[in-house]
Formats: sequence, structure tokens, C-alpha cells
Amino acid sequence: MAAPIVSKHVVLTPQYFNFVRHCPRFIHSKTTTAQEKKEKYAACPERVFSGIQPTGVPHIGNYIGAIRSWVQLQQSQCEVIYSIVDLHSITVPQEPDVLRENIFSMTACLLACGIDPDKSILFQQSSVPQHSELSWILGCLCSIPRLQHLPQWKEKSKRYKDASVGLFTYPILQAADILLYKSTKVPVGYDQTHHIELSAHLARAFNRSFGVVFPRPVILSGEVTKIRSLRKPQNKMSKSESDSYGRIDLTDPPDLIREKLKKAVTDSMSSVSYDLIGRPGVSNLIDIHCALTGLLEEEVCRQCEGTDTGRYKGQLADVVIETLQPIQAEIKQLLSDKPYLLQILSKGQQKATDIAEKTLSEVKKLVGFRS
Amino acid sequence: MAAPIVSKHVVLTPQYFNFVRHCPRFIHSKTTTAQEKKEKYAACPERVFSGIQPTGVPHIGNYIGAIRSWVQLQQSQCEVIYSIVDLHSITVPQEPDVLRENIFSMTACLLACGIDPDKSILFQQSSVPQHSELSWILGCLCSIPRLQHLPQWKEKSKRYKDASVGLFTYPILQAADILLYKSTKVPVGYDQTHHIELSAHLARAFNRSFGVVFPRPVILSGEVTKIRSLRKPQNKMSKSESDSYGRIDLTDPPDLIREKLKKAVTDSMSSVSYDLIGRPGVSNLIDIHCALTGLLEEEVCRQCEGTDTGRYKGQLADVVIETLQPIQAEIKQLLSDKPYLLQILSKGQQKATDIAEKTLSEVKKLVGFRS
Repeated sequence: MAAPIVSKHVVLTPQYFNFVRHCPRFIHSKTTTAQEKKEKYAACPERVFSGIQPTGVPHIGNYIGAIRSWVQLQQSQCEVIYSIVDLHSITVPQEPDVLRENIFSMTACLLACGIDPDKSILFQQSSVPQHSELSWILGCLCSIPRLQHLPQWKEKSKRYKDASVGLFTYPILQAADILLYKSTKVPVGYDQTHHIELSAHLARAFNRSFGVVFPRPVILSGEVTKIRSLRKPQNKMSKSESDSYGRIDLTDPPDLIREKLKKAVTDSMSSVSYDLIGRPGVSNLIDIHCALTGLLEEEVCRQCEGTDTGRYKGQLADVVIETLQPIQAEIKQLLSDKPYLLQILSKGQQKATDIAEKTLSEVKKLVGFRS
Repeated sequence: MAAPIVSKHVVLTPQYFNFVRHCPRFIHSKTTTAQEKKEKYAACPERVFSGIQPTGVPHIGNYIGAIRSWVQLQQSQCEVIYSIVDLHSITVPQEPDVLRENIFSMTACLLACGIDPDKSILFQQSSVPQHSELSWILGCLCSIPRLQHLPQWKEKSKRYKDASVGLFTYPILQAADILLYKSTKVPVGYDQTHHIELSAHLARAFNRSFGVVFPRPVILSGEVTKIRSLRKPQNKMSKSESDSYGRIDLTDPPDLIREKLKKAVTDSMSSVSYDLIGRPGVSNLIDIHCALTGLLEEEVCRQCEGTDTGRYKGQLADVVIETLQPIQAEIKQLLSDKPYLLQILSKGQQKATDIAEKTLSEVKKLVGFRS
């Protein structure tokens, strides 16, 4: 098994680790003494948790916007825990055979992009029962209006007729995912702000009612570029967009990448210039270019003086194809060795369970389930 | 440790095992063949599941209405599984130290009343993580209106301001409790009809979507007397009644039992006669008498000719005190030996987990979480 590819594909701006918010790490119970607080602070390491749904092969937007920062975080002082959140994926209907394959694909893609199971804990959510257990307990501390007012629920309940109870309560499971590992940093987009606030609210509610267990989780965000759809550059690049030409999947063959970029929506001007509002299509292509090469926008524009957008798309295709080539080779190799993938997930399960068991044991004692 | 007291306290009418409904045991998936159905039928034993919340010492109404029938069911051909459902109890706020003690009290009471851990599986719900895990999966198959329309939710959401998500979703956990053991019979009152129907609905929804796993659970009901409050004989005897003189707890000392019965609400007539509508108070006392002695109503009334209700209350107190005396002695002894109680619960946990693990493993494979 070849070593996972790490450094080559990780080009982040120096501002990446300017964490946007610094919040107190613990939410105190009213009865905690100063000494107890101090001990709790010392005992809790900075821990990063994030999850990704097994929706198949990630696209280049996932890669640039999330996975690369996960890889980079492995170099930080934090403990890093990444979960393939299959329990979340069933909140909308899934085809079992497809879901099973998607779990393998996502595992292979994460490893190929540089997630190193010796530096991170990489595991499948449903293999650690404590997620569901803590979710039940936290659900007993959460009022119904607290969930009903979440903007994502308002949007999702319109989109899915007959939404399931799981779709309604999934932010509680997300809080359990985070709190189970006493995570302090959660690298997610700002669309998740309300959910992370709910996690902090539930941590506080628990700590106040039963005693201090959970630090306050905060969003870990940086200057990560949001890549938009190639077909509708006003929207985020998304798996759920019906037109597959809106995204480049990590496993797309070179010809397809070239064709998708050729058909990317631009505008009536032929020059290459950066203007996010006035020229969203071309600017999105430049964003992809910068993210993959580490160049600045003005550097790309300078290089492209005299080049028209048609030719520029061809140049960008070369960059994308070259970047994805080693990742694709690694994905292919990993997917041909499922026992190895299962072994990686099993190792992750054990490491995740070690932490999860300890937290849940504390929780159960404080709630009154155990002596 | 003295052997649990069984036969002495169990006097059930012969009609007890007239199960009120006989339903097909399996709810079929559309793709199941006749042969597969046949094999599934054969593989699944009749299994009884019931749960009781750890609300402290049960009262005589619980004893007559539920616990004695649980004890009796141990003599049937069914496998019997009884759970102290602590995960349900936290759907409303609990004091942790009280909850912890209540789990011990309920265990001791059940054993003292005749639950035999060699004949039943007696366990604490929170010690088997598969309950929460299956609950999450079933929640993804349940629509929100399906829960909103349950009569108990309508009533409870009025009673508890800011009801928790747990209180809303608890019928799904109840379905998971039942289905996890592939239970076919659920000895509960008719107030639970809608919840057992929800369990059957979720069993069918799962079987149709993923393949046959769950038999259809049906209510197991019999001619068990419903004991009413001594203070408000139009209502069920209940732990939640503010006036503790409305109920006789299994551990009430003789003097208190005598006093509670003395103060039991009757009516202006002094004779002892049975008339459930016209004389609910006296009839309730006769019901208790019959349930504890096996006498018929007319036999009690004949014995009491010429006796006024005041004297009759004294005679009934003798019966109740005599019945509860050996149970109380056993409870006292059991509560003085908590390591033994923990050992019993641990043994139950192992036996419950053996079944629960198998079911959840099947479920996870069919959903697509595992190969």
C-alpha cells in the first residue's frame, strides 16, 4: 500500500489558522469551584471534530473547501477526529447497496487526499454506538422550538415532503458527535453556525444540570475558498445539483474534466479578469486555479493577459488534471483493497470508541444511570 | 439470598391468557418469497417484552395490574424480557441521585414480587446501547405527523411546558425496545394501543424498505383488574397523584396501609356492595380484595353481609398487610445487598445484549452500514 499523498495537494493561505472566534473553552456549572474549573481546563486538549456524509466521491469543491483543511489540521497541535457520518445520511432515503459503496468510496477518497490514520482518527459513525446513546440523552435536554427555529430545518422541511423525525432531530445527533469527543474546534462552514450554537447550548444545559463534562465547541474557520457550480456560478458547487456538469468529481477522467471546464458558464467578455460580482463564472475558475496552485488572483490574471477564456479553460483543465492524477491513482488502488479500508475503519473505530466510552461513562454516572 | 417469592402472590383469572388479538406475526416485505416467510416464522419464537420506568417503589396498582402478570408470564411458553426503562424516565427531568436509587428499588421490587432472573431477562435499558441505536434508525423511517397525532403526545405536550424532543420521540424508542428483541407480545394497557400500533407501523416500514427482520408486535392483554385511586376512585391509582393517600406503595408499613385504607373515599352507604358506576370507592376496595385473594366479587360481598364499610376497610387492611409482608421482607433484604442487585442487572444486560446485537447487526447490514 503506497503512503497517502499529503503535502503535495495542500496549499492553504497563511491566514488559515486565524481562528475566527475564541471562546471560553468550558461552559461552567453553577456549582463548579475555581480549582475544579482549572483542572478541567488542563485536562482537556484542543480537539477537532468534523464529519462528512458518505455521498460517494467528493467533488473538487469538497476537496478545496473541507478535505484539504482536514489534512492540514493533522499538522496542528490539535487531536483530529474525522467521521464518515452514515447515521446522518439515512435522514433522507438511501439505497443500501449504494450507501455501502459510498462508505468505501469516501474512505478511499479521504485517505487518497491525505488523511493519515496514524495522525487522525478516521471512523464510521454508526460503528460507535455512543453517538446514538448521547444523542438520546441530549434530546431530553432540548426543547422542540429550539429545533423548529433552526434555519436549515425550515428550508429542509419545505424541500422534503413528509420529512422524517431523523431529519428534524439530526442537529442533536450532530451535537452528540461533537460533544462525545469533548471537541473544542469544529471546522465547518458558516451555514453550520446555528448547529454549532445548538451544540454549545446543549453542552451548557448538560453542564448546568449535571456537572461539567463538555467544553464549548466553536467553529474553526479560515480563509478557505468556497468553490461554486460550473453551471450556476452563483450557487455553491454541490452534489445535489441535477446537472453533473456543475461539478468536477475527484474521480472524473481527464477528458471529462476538460469537457466540464469547457462548458463552464462564463460571460460575453473574452478576457480573463477577477470580479466576483460582475463575472462570477470566470472568477470561480480563477478561484479553483488559485486554490490548487497557491497563486494569487492577480498572478493568475497577469499570466493570462492576452489569453481568452476559452484557452484559459484549457490551461485550468491541465492544472486540475495534474493535481487530481495522483489522488485518482491512490483512490483506484485503495478501492481495489477493501479489506485494507475495513482495517483502517476498524482501527479508527477502536480509537474513537476509547474516547467515546469514557465520555459516555461520565455522562451516565452524572445523569443517574450508574453508580 | 432467599429464593424469590413467586406462586403465593400470583392469582390471575383463568381468562388471563385469552389474548385479545391474534395478528399475523410477520409483516412482509414485498420481495419476500413464501419459503423465506416460512423460515422466518419458524425462526422466531414468541417473545414478550415489557418495560417499567424506575419511578421508585411500585404501588399496589402496578403490582396487581402489571407486575403480577409479568411474573405469571414466566410460566408460559414465551421468552420473557423485562426492562427498567431509564432512558424513558429522563424524558422529563429527574434528580440523578433519586433516579439511581429508584433503579435499585425497582429491581428489588420486581425480584421480590417474583420476577426470576433465571426465567426472565431483567435488565436496565441504558445498559444496552442498541436501544438508542435502533431508535435512531427507526426515527429516520417515521414521519413527524405520525408522532404529532399520538393522543399521549397531545396530552403530554399540554402538561409539560417546553416539552423536550425526548418526550416527543419516546414512542420511537419504545418501538425500538420492542423490535430489538423481535418481540411478538407486549403486555401493556390499552392506553398504549397507539404506541404499539406505531411499533407495528415501523416494523412494516423497515421490512418493506430493507427486507424482513421484525415480526408484528401485538398487545397482550387479559382480564387484569385496573386498581383506582383510594382518594379519587374515578381515576387510575397513580404515582403522579399529589395525595400519597391515593395509593398504597409496596413498602408502606402496616400502620400506614391501615390508615390509607381507613381514609379511602367511599360513599354515604354503610353496606358493602359492588357497583362500579354507583359506588366506585367501595368497588375499588373489593377489586383490590379479589385481586389479592382470588375471590370473586360476589364471594367478598357475601362474606361481608352485615359488615359496614368502616369494618370492611380494616379486614381489607389485614389482607393487604398479609400479602405484602413477605414481599416487603424480601425487598428489604435485597436493598441491603446492592452488589447482588448489580449482579442480577449485569446478567440481564448480557442476555439482552446477546439478542440485541444480533438484531442490530441484521439491521445495519440491510440499511447499508455494513457488508
